[in-house]
Parts: sequence; structure tokens; C-alpha cells
Amino acid sequence: MTLNFVTSNLHKFEEVKEIAAREGIELVHSRTPYVEIQSDSLEEISNVGVQQACAIVKAPCFVEDAGLFVDALKGFPGPYSKYVFLTVGNQGILKLLEKEAKRGAEFRSAVGYCEPGGKPLVFIGKIRGAITAAPKGSGGFGFDPIFTPEGEKKTFGEMPTEEKNRFSHRARAVEGLIKWLKKGK
Amino acid sequence: MTLNFVTSNLHKFEEVKEIAAREGIELVHSRTPYVEIQSDSLEEISNVGVQQACAIVKAPCFVEDAGLFVDALKGFPGPYSKYVFLTVGNQGILKLLEKEAKRGAEFRSAVGYCEPGGKPLVFIGKIRGAITAAPKGSGGFGFDPIFTPEGEKKTFGEMPTEEKNRFSHRARAVEGLIKWLKKGK
Repeated sequence: MTLNFVTSNLHKFEEVKEIAAREGIELVHSRTPYVEIQSDSLEEISNVGVQQACAIVKAPCFVEDAGLFVDALKGFPGPYSKYVFLTVGNQGILKLLEKEAKRGAEFRSAVGYCEPGGKPLVFIGKIRGAITAAPKGSGGFGFDPIFTPEGEKKTFGEMPTEEKNRFSHRARAVEGLIKWLKKGK
Repeated sequence: MTLNFVTSNLHKFEEVKEIAAREGIELVHSRTPYVEIQSDSLEEISNVGVQQACAIVKAPCFVEDAGLFVDALKGFPGPYSKYVFLTVGNQGILKLLEKEAKRGAEFRSAVGYCEPGGKPLVFIGKIRGAITAAPKGSGGFGFDPIFTPEGEKKTFGEMPTEEKNRFSHRARAVEGLIKWLKKGK
């Protein structure tokens, strides 16, 4: 089975390629730009995005949108995680949480899948964890170095891709899609 | 002359109503929801948004998108100012600028105008200023209480609407549209 993943983010593509490979699926990379709407809901952003991506690619494809939702910051940076990472970065999140005891956070992923003429479907993956006091590790991307998943001692930034993919939000959402496809829908 | 302003933000409507009134224009409020795309450019967000709003309203109309761009934060919160205000708020911006001597910032407004069957036009308004050490005043909305326009001593939050409208980013963008409309386009 082959699958088209529409994304401009090479880090994401490499992660998902590893997940797909262990399921015997070959991933095809499409860099087709598609519109992402402003919304508090990753599910809605992926739902709208994949319909547009599919209309351009004219083949079954999926997109993925993810975000870090910090409890003490009312979910910030949430759906705008990429923009926030590129402006205030990890240090910005740590600054906002200075002297804050409540460190709980959640990484969420929404994988939107669509076939030409079909309705979009969205698969959600989540992982709870905590924001560290300082960045650790240089693996992964975005906010990975400041997030330690529940029950783990290392941040996502300290884990090789295979280890992060054992339980990451993105892996869970992608596995949801693969499971559904393999079931014969 | 009457003009349709499509917005869900009552504060914005009240401000723009005052600007329009002094130009002899009656403003009609439409709350029709329209899509805002994710983009670093307010101009692009308004351009796309007003085309959709106009297709729904089926009449000449305008939309307005604004943001606070902080120099020391690489433009953050920029186009996502509303979301950032609703999550980390004024205190979040002040926290991020703690011990920061560089306080420069800019409020930007992009007014998108469209007529059925026509091409959208965008009018930009800007105002330079500085981020205060603490919030001052309870007027205006959003980040107004932490922004002092260049050459002024009061924040936007300390000014009555008429005073803010003398030189605000939003007033400048709206005046651009009105000037263009009055010229007979």
C-alpha cells in the first residue's frame, strides 16, 4: 500500500515514514501547499485542509496538524504552535511558565484523510506530559525539547525517532488512520 | 452612503462606526461568519476573508483584521493576537518582555473590501508605539492597555474612542477605504 502525505514539514514526513514503514506502507511525499484555517480545533483545521489538498492532488491523501496545549496557559500555544515556536520559541513557553508549579501539557495531533469525491475523516492522537524547567535534547522538532511524556524521564527531544514514535500523539493519530485503512474501511 | 462591516467583534464595530459617522457614512453591522486563514500577513487574511464574506452577504462589504507586532518578539503575537489575548493575555506579553529594554511595537490593521463580482482590495493602517511596563486604562479592547502610541503619554486603553480614532491603525486603514470610495474609486 502507498499513501500520499501532504506536508511542507520534512521533520513530520520523516517521523511518519518510520511509522508507516513498520506497517508495511510506503509513504509518498507531496509538498502541495494547502490552506490552513484559523481555528481553536486541530480537527477542524485538518478537516478543511485535507479536502483542499485532496482536490489539488486528485488522489487519496492525508495531512497532519499538531499542537502543544499547555494547561496553565489556557491551551496556548495550541493550534498556533508553529508560529509561536518560530517567534518566541521554547524560551518563550518556559518564560511564561516561570514560577508556575502546574506544568501539565498535552501534545495533540489531527490526521485528516480524504479520497477524491469522498468525505474527509479525522483521526486524533494525544499524549499527556509535562513542560520541563529547561530544554533538553536536540532531537525531534518544535517544542519536543521541553516536553516529557507521562511516565518517561526523557523529553521528546532526547529520544530517537523510533522511541518517540512508540507513543507520540502523531504516531497515535497516524496509527488510527492505518488501522482504519487496513480494516478495508 | 451606507457600508456593510462584517465582524463578530462589537468593539471593532463601535470604533469603526465612529470613524464612518464623521465621514457621513452609515455603517451596517453583519455578523456573518467567514473563514480566516492562517498566514503571517494580515493583508492576505483580509483579502481571502472578504472574498468569502462578500460571496455570502452578496453586497459590497468590508472586513478588518488587526494585530500587535512586537519588535523584540519577532512580530509575535502578530496575526494571532486575538488567540494570544484570550489565552496568555496582556500579562503574557509583559512577562515575555520582562527585563527587555527594547519595547518597540506596531499595531497593524488590514481592511479588506469587496463588491460582488469584483476583486478584493486591501487598505493598510499602522501605528508605531511602545509596550508599557504594566497595563493602563480599561478602554479599547485586546492589547490596548499595554500600548502607548509614539508621541503620546497615554495607552490606547486610557483613551476614549474618539481620541484613539484620531490616529489608530484601524482608523488609518478605514480612512483609506473611505477616501477611495469617495473618490468614486
